[in-house]
Amino acid sequence: MRSTTRLCRAQQLSLSVRDMSCRTTNTRSALLGPSSSAVQAGNFYRRTNTSVQQRRGITISQLDNGREGRERVIILGSGWAGFTVARKLDSDKYQAVVVSPRDHFTFTPLLASTAVGTLEFRTAMEPVKSRRTKVNFFQGWADTVDFKNKIITIEEAADDPAQGLARTTGRHGNAFGAKRNGESIEAVKKGKLFDLVYDKLVISVGCYSQTFGTPGVKEHAFFLKDVGDARKIRNRLLACFELAALPTTSDEAKTHLLNFAVVGGGPTGIEFAAELHDIIHEDLARIYPELMSFHRITVYDVAAKVLPMFDSKIADYALVTLRREGISIKTQHHVESLYPGTPGTRSKGVTEDHAVFTLTTKEEGEISVGMVVWSTGLMMNPLIANALRQVPELPADGVRVSGPEFDQKSPSSVRWEVKKHPKTASVVTDDRLRVKLISEEEDQDRSEAVLKHVFALGDCSVIEGTSYPATAQVASQKALWLAKRLNKGDIERAPFTWRNLGVMAYIGNWNALFQGGTGHNVSGRAAWVLWRGAYLTRSVSLRNKILIPTYWFLNWLFGRDIGRF
Amino acid sequence: MRSTTRLCRAQQLSLSVRDMSCRTTNTRSALLGPSSSAVQAGNFYRRTNTSVQQRRGITISQLDNGREGRERVIILGSGWAGFTVARKLDSDKYQAVVVSPRDHFTFTPLLASTAVGTLEFRTAMEPVKSRRTKVNFFQGWADTVDFKNKIITIEEAADDPAQGLARTTGRHGNAFGAKRNGESIEAVKKGKLFDLVYDKLVISVGCYSQTFGTPGVKEHAFFLKDVGDARKIRNRLLACFELAALPTTSDEAKTHLLNFAVVGGGPTGIEFAAELHDIIHEDLARIYPELMSFHRITVYDVAAKVLPMFDSKIADYALVTLRREGISIKTQHHVESLYPGTPGTRSKGVTEDHAVFTLTTKEEGEISVGMVVWSTGLMMNPLIANALRQVPELPADGVRVSGPEFDQKSPSSVRWEVKKHPKTASVVTDDRLRVKLISEEEDQDRSEAVLKHVFALGDCSVIEGTSYPATAQVASQKALWLAKRLNKGDIERAPFTWRNLGVMAYIGNWNALFQGGTGHNVSGRAAWVLWRGAYLTRSVSLRNKILIPTYWFLNWLFGRDIGRF
Repeated sequence: MRSTTRLCRAQQLSLSVRDMSCRTTNTRSALLGPSSSAVQAGNFYRRTNTSVQQRRGITISQLDNGREGRERVIILGSGWAGFTVARKLDSDKYQAVVVSPRDHFTFTPLLASTAVGTLEFRTAMEPVKSRRTKVNFFQGWADTVDFKNKIITIEEAADDPAQGLARTTGRHGNAFGAKRNGESIEAVKKGKLFDLVYDKLVISVGCYSQTFGTPGVKEHAFFLKDVGDARKIRNRLLACFELAALPTTSDEAKTHLLNFAVVGGGPTGIEFAAELHDIIHEDLARIYPELMSFHRITVYDVAAKVLPMFDSKIADYALVTLRREGISIKTQHHVESLYPGTPGTRSKGVTEDHAVFTLTTKEEGEISVGMVVWSTGLMMNPLIANALRQVPELPADGVRVSGPEFDQKSPSSVRWEVKKHPKTASVVTDDRLRVKLISEEEDQDRSEAVLKHVFALGDCSVIEGTSYPATAQVASQKALWLAKRLNKGDIERAPFTWRNLGVMAYIGNWNALFQGGTGHNVSGRAAWVLWRGAYLTRSVSLRNKILIPTYWFLNWLFGRDIGRF
Repeated sequence: MRSTTRLCRAQQLSLSVRDMSCRTTNTRSALLGPSSSAVQAGNFYRRTNTSVQQRRGITISQLDNGREGRERVIILGSGWAGFTVARKLDSDKYQAVVVSPRDHFTFTPLLASTAVGTLEFRTAMEPVKSRRTKVNFFQGWADTVDFKNKIITIEEAADDPAQGLARTTGRHGNAFGAKRNGESIEAVKKGKLFDLVYDKLVISVGCYSQTFGTPGVKEHAFFLKDVGDARKIRNRLLACFELAALPTTSDEAKTHLLNFAVVGGGPTGIEFAAELHDIIHEDLARIYPELMSFHRITVYDVAAKVLPMFDSKIADYALVTLRREGISIKTQHHVESLYPGTPGTRSKGVTEDHAVFTLTTKEEGEISVGMVVWSTGLMMNPLIANALRQVPELPADGVRVSGPEFDQKSPSSVRWEVKKHPKTASVVTDDRLRVKLISEEEDQDRSEAVLKHVFALGDCSVIEGTSYPATAQVASQKALWLAKRLNKGDIERAPFTWRNLGVMAYIGNWNALFQGGTGHNVSGRAAWVLWRGAYLTRSVSLRNKILIPTYWFLNWLFGRDIGRF
């Protein structure tokens, strides 16, 4: 009976196939308009082609059947924030639906280890769907959000070849090699679109990697945001050594190939440099002893100091340790470009030796490198930057409005937009992680509103008035808090507050740093034990809790695996 | 002192840089000619650019220094034959040097398991170089072999993006999308070349995948020869399910996406079909229950029966079991083409739906499939087919000649070629695995010669008068025999004979087949225990002997990991 009702309603709507080639941001509201009646009437799906409704509706109708009266929480993103909310939501109360372009969660603190083979790639990965989870999942991109009708439009991306790699441009940008902007998307091949209706929406789409427009970085640098990146780095690192070992490689070329640059002196950059040091000294030194005099690791940062989140004392200890291990730390250095070939070959139009890259810094000019790992800067997710801007109409319920104007006029007469942080452009939320809107007027006293059923957390968001760092710790604490509040239905009880559990970083040769939230510091071998213990404890699945120590042990015993595939 | 001597000799040779752009097969002998004096004078390396000798010679001179009076055995290939010889040679007597385009050995019997995630990829891999091995390794292709001067020319391939994938064309073929032939290689970007001098040469380069010229197979089929292939299959399989799960996918498209075809009814094809059945029924059925009615697995073979190496009784048992599990076996079917898109879209110039492929068989016409795994046919390695043909001059020693003509004339007046099997074109060896030559005359009684220091084993070779199958078992038995004989120096003692240890195949749902060499048969669960035990015992490194049962256990307990990267 249910499906008959649904079909009839869909026919009433008589929506046409939504062909993106004739669709721009400006026509969004017009297209989304007609569906509001359906939503208000309790119709929880919207399809684009009514003539094939019965044939095509299986998954969404099964999703609808599976709701069993529960509220549907759509979670955008499968990172620290989104994956945690999805796992922790009470499946008796909520139907959790994750929408993400990647089918897995990445345990980012272990990525640097997987990039050099201390751990196997999959130990830093948890599939969103597995035998044990009750989470629903659609692999795709959130294209637009219609707050009024509580509908998100999803572009499917189940076979995206860039899955598992860091993103540096909008999802259709790479086809052009240019950034996507709102109006130029039509020409790009897009996935099919479909809509989902939500009761609650969790926006946790994270950030992209920021290259600051530095020429060549997007194309030629290696990133370290996902498992695919780690795999690329591991293959490249070992290829550099294999290339250097060839008898056709001159000593000069060896120094180029084995010159590894890390850009960014945050924990990720420092940990990768440290892990790189370890594989070179623990494994590659035994396999390529003749190459040991040629290698070099350099960390570049524009700031005056690295590891800025640590106290000077502990950061200085790190610096001394890293330098003793032979890792150069070059602060106040500005990367200007990165291109393939040796210095000078580009201007001459000759790029004979594609095996190396030329890195140009303002301070040192051109140097040849075998690999540049870029781990600095966050770029706002295009969904936040482009789609989540104007809010043409407010939802009928679930909005709390405050501001001076409402003495005179009603909220619907005000033009709203999503409130963004002036510097980072992230979504501003209240202290319950609910998305804030602000009136578009340029008054000093602008009206504000809160969308009670739309939450934002993770790197794409900030709680008004706070400056919590963009870290996994903050994202997962917010996610745990939100899931708990939703499960208990007591979100008004108390606001979210971040409990600083401290920061950790591995600095190589079995040494680490730990700075507790209360100012307690540990460094050296003891901190290394803490570091390993913490990440083992926090890894998600029992499978990985078993595999991680197994690999730590086997690789300590037998050495890291240097096979490439 | 040694290095001075070498430099002087090299200058005497005054070899020019060997630029392949002006080099064809025909000019080979002219270029290799001048070096003979160096070799005879005991100079064990040859470099191409004498002016940079001191800068560039490090690796080869270190290799020379490392010889310490031992004979150098160059092993071409890192498969079952080559890797086994390299590991088993006595490093006190021989300097083993492996030359291979891939840096690892692949434990092929476990590939089908890794392709569906029963095991992790790396458990089917052993790096040629590791902390524990004393094997020297150069990553590259054997380009040519100069039997007279005992020199092989190597094209370096340390950064080959196709490493870890099945080969279907010559190594420069893919750049053109056309097969390489002897005269068209100049235009292709080649790696740098360098020469190595050998005392003994082991040719174990294996075979390529044969597609019989079937249109579209090279481009669109999935192979299962190496770890990279397994990774591609695993990603594609899971993408097919994720694509089918999208609400935009019609039921018709689901039947297309989840239609999996395996071409080739040998053990590899059958085992892959069985493993595919397992992941679908043990894991994907729980994750995508709504898709179970849409999937299909079909094995195609041109022959009248599958698993031809098994007795009828046991092959029939396999057929019954496979069919009961829902796997279709279509014998006497001929694949004609494979192209992207649904049937009919190509002729109309429309290829809207790239997510599926159209497989055409002579018997059934066009059908839509989500993936075709091609596991049939061996193509002779281009090194054997092209480079190892004419032998312009015989080495001064290490040749035993027999034949009618030598009553009248000397061996050097005869034109020689490598003896090939008339049907498979593989290298013919004597029963000591030594490569045979034959005179080029078209007489009935042609003269023959044996190169005493050149061995051929594995799929690229055949012992004269035998018809041992092209299997890992034969290759590794030959390799063990050869290493033992070389270590003991008693190759004349007794000829190689193959001991048939039987054949095994996994047929899904914890069942296997085992047919002993003596005719003893086991099938079902007991054979499955044998199957797992045998491959666990034969896996090479202790690391993998620990990891393989760990993954068997964890994946049985938690299910296979369905994350893609």
